[in-house]
Amino acid sequence: MISEKMYELGAKSSVIREIFEYGKKRKAEIGADNVYDYSLGNPSVPAPESVNEAIRELTLNMNSCDLHGYTSAVGDNGTRQAIADDLNKRFGTSFGMHNFYMTCGAAASLCITFRALAEKDDEIIIFAPYFPEYKVFISSQGATPVEVKCDADTLQIDLDRFEKAITKNTKAVVVNSPNNPSGVVLSEDTVKGMCEILKRKQAEYGKPIFIISDEPYRELVYDGVKVPFLTKYYDNTIVCYSYSKSLSLPGDRIGYILVPDEVADFELIYKAVCGAGRSLGYVCAPSMMQFVIRKCVGQTGDISVYKHNRDLLVNAFNEYGFKVAKPDGAFYLFMKSPEEDAVAFCEKAKKYELLLVPSDSFGFPGYVRLSYCVSTAMIEKSLPSFKALSEEYNLI
Amino acid sequence: MISEKMYELGAKSSVIREIFEYGKKRKAEIGADNVYDYSLGNPSVPAPESVNEAIRELTLNMNSCDLHGYTSAVGDNGTRQAIADDLNKRFGTSFGMHNFYMTCGAAASLCITFRALAEKDDEIIIFAPYFPEYKVFISSQGATPVEVKCDADTLQIDLDRFEKAITKNTKAVVVNSPNNPSGVVLSEDTVKGMCEILKRKQAEYGKPIFIISDEPYRELVYDGVKVPFLTKYYDNTIVCYSYSKSLSLPGDRIGYILVPDEVADFELIYKAVCGAGRSLGYVCAPSMMQFVIRKCVGQTGDISVYKHNRDLLVNAFNEYGFKVAKPDGAFYLFMKSPEEDAVAFCEKAKKYELLLVPSDSFGFPGYVRLSYCVSTAMIEKSLPSFKALSEEYNLI
Repeated sequence: MISEKMYELGAKSSVIREIFEYGKKRKAEIGADNVYDYSLGNPSVPAPESVNEAIRELTLNMNSCDLHGYTSAVGDNGTRQAIADDLNKRFGTSFGMHNFYMTCGAAASLCITFRALAEKDDEIIIFAPYFPEYKVFISSQGATPVEVKCDADTLQIDLDRFEKAITKNTKAVVVNSPNNPSGVVLSEDTVKGMCEILKRKQAEYGKPIFIISDEPYRELVYDGVKVPFLTKYYDNTIVCYSYSKSLSLPGDRIGYILVPDEVADFELIYKAVCGAGRSLGYVCAPSMMQFVIRKCVGQTGDISVYKHNRDLLVNAFNEYGFKVAKPDGAFYLFMKSPEEDAVAFCEKAKKYELLLVPSDSFGFPGYVRLSYCVSTAMIEKSLPSFKALSEEYNLI
Repeated sequence: MISEKMYELGAKSSVIREIFEYGKKRKAEIGADNVYDYSLGNPSVPAPESVNEAIRELTLNMNSCDLHGYTSAVGDNGTRQAIADDLNKRFGTSFGMHNFYMTCGAAASLCITFRALAEKDDEIIIFAPYFPEYKVFISSQGATPVEVKCDADTLQIDLDRFEKAITKNTKAVVVNSPNNPSGVVLSEDTVKGMCEILKRKQAEYGKPIFIISDEPYRELVYDGVKVPFLTKYYDNTIVCYSYSKSLSLPGDRIGYILVPDEVADFELIYKAVCGAGRSLGYVCAPSMMQFVIRKCVGQTGDISVYKHNRDLLVNAFNEYGFKVAKPDGAFYLFMKSPEEDAVAFCEKAKKYELLLVPSDSFGFPGYVRLSYCVSTAMIEKSLPSFKALSEEYNLI
């Protein structure tokens, strides 16, 4: 009577969701302050005040029919030019507004890009650990996700495994750096190695293989770490961006797809992106938020809060004997489970009111993800629980 | 290298878009005031001032992480309850928040609903004249659109043709009243006749056939005309709504899907809607706009402007001998072309700087659509052009 597949997608809660629901119940029982919920990747830093100021100013000074009216499907020209100018200044690129297609956030950017590219039998490579929705988005747009495990020590791309996974059906590879769930930033060496393999494989198969760079965490890096900007390393790079994390606007659904001129058959790809947006029901990206971005491009929320949170946790974990992947960016820590079964470890953690996400659904068992986009006070209060958990495992 | 289908969708401009581009060029040549552009369905009435006030108030008084944060995928509870309360008050229904799924506007509502329902070989009936994107949305979500022509005199549903078009593969029928492009409101007799046929056919095939009621123009009716609220006539009705027209917020992308309890297997359908939204990349409807709707539900822009525009045109057309379909709602007039070829008629109209849309792409040749969501001043200034056009055809 209905699409079984859609029912399953709607009915099956994600693990993260289940933990979140458990947390809600537990908070009701023992008080919100006594539950240490590290499950959700929802920015805890407010949007910069300039965002709300821009919104108020627009509602006072811009014609309502323009502010709230349709923009063209590709997005407002001024907004797209402002984004191009900002990236050009920061990365020495030379994008124009014609390279941008405004979207309703990262999930829309990805779905539209997958849909634009996917032909029958296409495979799209994702690196584990990965954001679980990648598999949903890729399958739903008609391609097949192919998992390649990262190096277990560094969580950088395992280049040998990567090369072996590429076939004549490989249409694209999704790169997510800084990474959700690991917080790892791909090194320049990794990026260069990956691009070299891709160039060789493109030549071998006589067809383009695209990098789809999903980079909502691009600006969330600490201690001066540099995130290689992929369009500068590889021509066939399509960037999917969202302001959800950098401007703390996840609910407002605003982002873009960037198709550089250097991409093979730029015109074809850009038009296919437009067609895919249309076929998925995205008429235009939210107009008022587009005008806000035009005013606030290049800004971020107060990222120092995340760095402080990260340092608090990393220092404590070093002391308690927990091992985490090199935590250069995003607002996640990826901790090695002290026992093989991360689900069992998370159950034990619950006894100390610590809510962690086992890494199984990220395609990389044996770890847990902690989202440190939480209040610093919660982190401080939770440290004795981590210490007790460490003692249970005799880690120190 | 890419999806051919998506390329075609992106590359092929719609007829309306072409006319719009022609209009832009022409305005640059002879001045914007001298071109009478009736091509676009973009609200010309500003959003009620309460919308901008609500936005400002929210930015001042609501916590930023809540205002701009993710809502749950189905939408904010308070918003959904406010919408339920408003409909219950107006239509004597008894919806709860659990019946609503908030969306990024009407196109998203439709795509998600089609995707939730569509199984292999499914057919979805649309009535011509229709909004051309229906065919794109239905095909893209995996079903086949089946066209049924309305009665040429009344533009109501031709019930005989409708009954004959229903097969064992018919999954749903899309109803759009008030209608784009015709402005016609389905009479209660038509609605009752349609529902009776559907009930009979459901029994015959032993399976539900859904009405998908696409009603962004629900509140845009004139002279006290009543739009039958379809959930009261037929249990298996799913409503797709958008605030684009009633609140003049088309760019902000906010609407909902309403699945009443009475729908066969409510739980299944609602979950499939959730899954379809997920698979298309709709994480949640824009959060701040959800909170705005919570405050402004039940309001509209100043619709009397549209009525005034309509009356001006209808009176003039009566005088000049042009025939239009009964123009009870939306902001469109559907005029019979005085020659068989509406495209040729539109070309002649251009000589008088009148930009009209030929009805061929609406699946109903021989007519033109006029959007009267334009300034009253433009209408007044354009009347001599219509008169001259009428004289060219010796209509009076």
